[in-house]
Amino acid sequence: MTFEAITYALEDRIATVTLNRPEARNGYTNQMADELAAAFALADADDEVRVVVIAANGKDFCVGMDMSGGDAPDFTAPDWIEPATRATRPLSRLDKPVIAAIQGSAVGVGSTLVLPADFRIAASNARFGFVFPRRGLFPEGGSTWFLPRIVGLGRAQDWMLTGRLIPVDEALAAGLVTQVVAPEMLLERAYGLARDLIANTAAVSEAVIRRTLLHMLGEPSPEASFQLDSKLIAHAFGTADTIEGIMSFLQKRAPEFTGLVSKDLPDFVPWR
Amino acid sequence: MTFEAITYALEDRIATVTLNRPEARNGYTNQMADELAAAFALADADDEVRVVVIAANGKDFCVGMDMSGGDAPDFTAPDWIEPATRATRPLSRLDKPVIAAIQGSAVGVGSTLVLPADFRIAASNARFGFVFPRRGLFPEGGSTWFLPRIVGLGRAQDWMLTGRLIPVDEALAAGLVTQVVAPEMLLERAYGLARDLIANTAAVSEAVIRRTLLHMLGEPSPEASFQLDSKLIAHAFGTADTIEGIMSFLQKRAPEFTGLVSKDLPDFVPWR
Amino acid sequence: MTFEAITYALEDRIATVTLNRPEARNGYTNQMADELAAAFALADADDEVRVVVIAANGKDFCVGMDMSGGDAPDFTAPDWIEPATRATRPLSRLDKPVIAAIQGSAVGVGSTLVLPADFRIAASNARFGFVFPRRGLFPEGGSTWFLPRIVGLGRAQDWMLTGRLIPVDEALAAGLVTQVVAPEMLLERAYGLARDLIANTAAVSEAVIRRTLLHMLGEPSPEASFQLDSKLIAHAFGTADTIEGIMSFLQKRAPEFTGLVSKDLPDFVPWR
Repeated sequence: MTFEAITYALEDRIATVTLNRPEARNGYTNQMADELAAAFALADADDEVRVVVIAANGKDFCVGMDMSGGDAPDFTAPDWIEPATRATRPLSRLDKPVIAAIQGSAVGVGSTLVLPADFRIAASNARFGFVFPRRGLFPEGGSTWFLPRIVGLGRAQDWMLTGRLIPVDEALAAGLVTQVVAPEMLLERAYGLARDLIANTAAVSEAVIRRTLLHMLGEPSPEASFQLDSKLIAHAFGTADTIEGIMSFLQKRAPEFTGLVSKDLPDFVPWR
Repeated sequence: MTFEAITYALEDRIATVTLNRPEARNGYTNQMADELAAAFALADADDEVRVVVIAANGKDFCVGMDMSGGDAPDFTAPDWIEPATRATRPLSRLDKPVIAAIQGSAVGVGSTLVLPADFRIAASNARFGFVFPRRGLFPEGGSTWFLPRIVGLGRAQDWMLTGRLIPVDEALAAGLVTQVVAPEMLLERAYGLARDLIANTAAVSEAVIRRTLLHMLGEPSPEASFQLDSKLIAHAFGTADTIEGIMSFLQKRAPEFTGLVSKDLPDFVPWR
Repeated sequence: MTFEAITYALEDRIATVTLNRPEARNGYTNQMADELAAAFALADADDEVRVVVIAANGKDFCVGMDMSGGDAPDFTAPDWIEPATRATRPLSRLDKPVIAAIQGSAVGVGSTLVLPADFRIAASNARFGFVFPRRGLFPEGGSTWFLPRIVGLGRAQDWMLTGRLIPVDEALAAGLVTQVVAPEMLLERAYGLARDLIANTAAVSEAVIRRTLLHMLGEPSPEASFQLDSKLIAHAFGTADTIEGIMSFLQKRAPEFTGLVSKDLPDFVPWR
């Protein structure tokens, strides 16, 4: 598989998906959307991949849809999917943790693309912008579902109704980003987190936690999680990873988890 | 239409609805509730109105229900609606952005009335209070639904179970208010925000964003927003506002949006 | 009823439930789970109890499941309930406010146990940890439902996917804890809050607020709360507690509420 608008690299069990149109400030295109979806599918299907990092080449993460155009889609097709959702829908369903590393402008789809990631690490020069109403447009990529659940309803209303640029400090205080670092440290910080997850957490646990957190946002009461938790814990104590996790903890050594997302996910999890 | 407990003014496309019982610290009455509902209906039906500002005359925003009484309602009527809900229900369904400007005490219904607003700008002397359990009462106006979605469950439990007064700094940190300003700057700041929305955002975009954010809080998964977003984006590219939004951006000039909420809302939006 | 792994004490209308295995840093056991459930049932059924305080003897609140074992449960029984849920499910359904007082390590079930409490007051030496993926395990006690609703989705993903230790300052900023105090002041602060609730709030109001906040998290729109609020307010004005709450406020004296959770809860509340 060859990519043009992005790059895909796998090293040390980390798949890095990089927006790669720096000459256009990573302006988002239909091609980029489809390549992102393909890259996420690739990473999800490959047991060698434990963590996905989303990054961008150049000074800006992504300045939004590329308006210079040329590849206008067929809006009238009944199954047409807008470009942001083509990437965010599969991203929200990955069985691997996703770390977004964001520098410079992350505007429009540059902001909405990273909402289904699990971690957003931002450079100190990053700024976000849900600029849609300023273009006579509407939010995309499922962002009206994700944003209020991440930063609260009041902040989501403020950010989405004004369309203003959000400074990185405000994004940090609101919980949109979890770390702010110097721009030259951005990728190193993302990889440091990825290496920690790979060394110290079980792949199956990560998949279950990621998907269950999202699933439980749709459950009307804690009862669904009370019931699922008992099934998961009962299941866990028959698995090699749980035994290894407890033994390594008691023996004060690093764990060596072997469970694979492709084979060892319990089949009773509600999001399958 | 004449109002007594409130005033209603329309200027520069901003409808200002002002609690106007300063002699009673804007103590809330059945009359005030019904006049607020009428004012919101007026603002919503008038295309000339782009933004609604809720303000209050005097030192305090509203100290809660006026207990001095006289106009006791018929509690036993099966269709009786408590006074806070008479205002907050229509407020939550407006197709225009709502900015609340809050000074001094905003206690009881003074706090719950502004939860369905999109922006809460507070004077530095503002304080909130969900004082219901201290009066042997219950929260009103849908506040048990809104508050945890704005400030998180833990803070909502703290604030509503203690009934204590919330200092403005705590309200800001929790995301209940988005800006704190000197009392003499309060209205000017609210109007500044309103003017920015009017000059730079499309009316139809604002209506869709406001209603969709609330609607998506009731959707169990992002799938509903993935599907709606594709419909909205496909629809947008046939509208004058989207073309104007993109052209004005490319031409680095102010946009001139012409879409009207009364005519140009897409008919497939789920909250219609 | 005698307890071994915990203690239960009732004084001044405050039931204190204390984890009492300090020699094992309050390592959680099946016995502790069942005793907690029994203690919560005791407190809930006793009108003399107005507030429940959860505390722990020793330097740490609870370091998680006791792995030294011996009392392995029958995981294959179809109705087996994992130990955290045995305590958190009844805790989430109490009709009394619950204050957790947390010092030192609150790790694994030490963190999840307190999520259904209404208030988490932490000593300055407290630290939390959702360490499950580091043990090849899964979150328990309904924590995937509660945590994102308390601290937001982004922070919940960060905390649960890394399994890292959360410093108390980060927990405070995120809204997981509402107060941080010197360790020697921890219990006094919890009791101070409990006394304030007992002196100044109505028991029936507290029960309704606690249960309604949780219930409304499952409602797709504010409409359910608009409708419930009118029923509750109409009901309230026929009760002694509401009359006393308003009269004591007007007379600027302390209220003397007499309503009992066992008898005076309205029968139309949706969570009964």
